[in-house]
Amino acid sequence: MNIEMIRAAAARLAGHVRETPLLNAPLLDEIAGRRVWIKPECLQHTGSFKFRGAYSALSALAEEVRAKGVIAYSSGNHAQGVALAARMHGAPAVIVMPEDSPQLKIANTRAYGAEVVLYDRNRESREDIGAELARTRGLTLIKPYDEPQVIAGQGTMGLEIARQAAALGITQADVVICCGGGGLTSGTALAFEAEAPGLRARPAEPEGFDDTTRSLAAGRILRNPAMGGSICDAIVTPQPGDITFPIMQRLAGPGIAVTDAEALQAMAHAFNRLKLVAEPGGAVALAAVLFHPEAFGDTEKVIVTISGGNVDADIFARALETLH
Amino acid sequence: MNIEMIRAAAARLAGHVRETPLLNAPLLDEIAGRRVWIKPECLQHTGSFKFRGAYSALSALAEEVRAKGVIAYSSGNHAQGVALAARMHGAPAVIVMPEDSPQLKIANTRAYGAEVVLYDRNRESREDIGAELARTRGLTLIKPYDEPQVIAGQGTMGLEIARQAAALGITQADVVICCGGGGLTSGTALAFEAEAPGLRARPAEPEGFDDTTRSLAAGRILRNPAMGGSICDAIVTPQPGDITFPIMQRLAGPGIAVTDAEALQAMAHAFNRLKLVAEPGGAVALAAVLFHPEAFGDTEKVIVTISGGNVDADIFARALETLH
Repeated sequence: MNIEMIRAAAARLAGHVRETPLLNAPLLDEIAGRRVWIKPECLQHTGSFKFRGAYSALSALAEEVRAKGVIAYSSGNHAQGVALAARMHGAPAVIVMPEDSPQLKIANTRAYGAEVVLYDRNRESREDIGAELARTRGLTLIKPYDEPQVIAGQGTMGLEIARQAAALGITQADVVICCGGGGLTSGTALAFEAEAPGLRARPAEPEGFDDTTRSLAAGRILRNPAMGGSICDAIVTPQPGDITFPIMQRLAGPGIAVTDAEALQAMAHAFNRLKLVAEPGGAVALAAVLFHPEAFGDTEKVIVTISGGNVDADIFARALETLH
Repeated sequence: MNIEMIRAAAARLAGHVRETPLLNAPLLDEIAGRRVWIKPECLQHTGSFKFRGAYSALSALAEEVRAKGVIAYSSGNHAQGVALAARMHGAPAVIVMPEDSPQLKIANTRAYGAEVVLYDRNRESREDIGAELARTRGLTLIKPYDEPQVIAGQGTMGLEIARQAAALGITQADVVICCGGGGLTSGTALAFEAEAPGLRARPAEPEGFDDTTRSLAAGRILRNPAMGGSICDAIVTPQPGDITFPIMQRLAGPGIAVTDAEALQAMAHAFNRLKLVAEPGGAVALAAVLFHPEAFGDTEKVIVTISGGNVDADIFARALETLH
C-alpha cells in the first residue's frame, strides 16, 4: 500500500469521480473558534466518498474477472458505490445488505442496477452469505475498507485536499475524517505524507463505536463491544482493518469520539449554514470540530470531511428538531 | 448593460466568490427524461447567488460612498448577500426586511453584522422606509435586481456555466433559472450571448407569480396580481425590472411556471439524490425540469440552477413529507 497506488487510482478515476470543492465556512468558524473548511464528499457520486474506492477497485480488476461480476456487503454507502461503479464498467453486482439498512440506501442501490440480497444482522453472517454467493457465481468480493485498491481510491480524496489546501495557502491543518474501518483515513493520511506533510488526518467516530480512537491510543487493534445502536450506521465497523490500522498508527490520530446527539446537531448546522445534507455518520467529523474544541488545542485551521449524505427523511427530521 | 460589465464584475469577484461546481445527476436524468446538470448556487456564500450581485455592486462603489454605508430591502437572500459583502468591504449595512421573512434569513442577516429594520409588508412601503433611511444617514441603496452592477454580478454565474459546460462538451442546452425580478436570468443570458451562444436561459417561476413568463409571452411588462401566498418567498417580485426585461425579451425564455407542491417535491429530490438543501424558490427550476417535460420538447440537455438554500426547518420538513 503506497502513494503510487493512490496516484494510479486518481488516474483511473479522472473524468469519472467528482472533484468535490473545499468550502470555507465563516459562520462555522465562530462556533468552532478556529478557521474551518469543509470537504463535502456527500456531493460525490452515490452521495458518499465510497464511490472512489469502489471505482478504483472495479477499474483495477482484470477485464475477464470483472465481467463475471462483483459482490460486496455493506449497510449502504459502499453498496451504492460498488453498484454504480459496476454499472459504469458494465459488470453485474450483487450487494449483501442488512435488512435494517436505511430504506434510501437499499432503494438507491437497486436503482443503480445491483441485485440486493438482504440478511438479518443478528442471526446471519454476511461473510458466509457473501462467500457462498461468490463461490457459486464466480463473483469477486470488493471489501469495504481492508483492500489496497479501495484504500487507494479513498486516498484520492487526500490528493484533492492536498492540492486544494495548497491553492488556499493552507500548509498546516488538522483534517478530521469520519472513520469506520479506516479506509478513508489511511488512504488520506498516505496522500498527505507524500503531498502535504503539514496536514494531519484525525479520525472521528461515534461514542461506543470508537474502535479506531481506542486502538490508536492503545497501540493495538481493539474491537467495539457492540455492532448496533448508533444512528451513525455508515461508520460502525467491528474494528480497524489489518491493512488500515498500521498506516493510521504511523500517520494519523489522535481520534475523537462524539455522541449521536452531537452528530444530529452537526447535521443541523450543515443544513443551516452549508446547505448540505449530511448523514449521521458523515457528520461526526463536523461534530468533533464544533463541539470538542478541547481536542484541537491551539490548532488554527481545520479541514472537515462530510463523508456522506445518505440519510432517511425521518432521521433528518430529528436532526432539524435540534434547531428548536 | 453589457458583457464587459460582467467580465469586470468577475474580475472583482475573483477570490471572493465561490465557483460552484456543475454536477451531473444520473438519478435525475431518468425522471427528467433527458440529461440534467445542476448548478448549486445554494453553496454560494450566504446560501444563494445573491452574494454575487451584492459583492459586485459594493465593490463598484467609490470608496468614500461605500464608507458611509449601504441599504437594501429584501425578504432575505439579497439581504444576506449585501450584509456579507458589506462586511467584507468594512462598510455598514442596513437591511429593510418584511417581518414575516423566514427566521433563518433574518438571523443570518444579523449574523453577518447588518442592522435589520423590520416592516409590515401589508401596511408599510419598504421603498419609503428605505428612502428615508438613505436620506437621513447618507446610505447608498443597493437594489435587488434592476441595477446594472447587480445584474453584472449575477451574470458571473453565466460565465462560470459557459466555461464549465464547454469543459464537459455541452454546446447546446436549455439553462433553467429561478427567476424573481430577472437579475440572474438577464445577467446569465448576456454571458451566454457572448460566451456560449448554444445555451439558452429560461426563467422558472411559481404559478400565480409568473410575471416574467407572462410578460415574455405578451411582449410587455405585466404585474403579478398579488405579492404574498407563495412559499417561494425568494422569487416573488411585483414585475420584471425595467432593465432586466428588455434583455430577457431579446435573449431568454420562454418561461415555465410550477406549483408550490412541485417546488416542495423538487426540494425532496435535491435532498435525496443531490444531498443539497434547496429553498422553495431555489427549487422551481428543478421542478420545471422534473415535472414539466412538455416545456422542453426534444431538448436533450438541461442545466438547472438551484439558486438558494435558505429555508426554515419547518418548510423543509414539509418537503421531506412528500417522500412518503
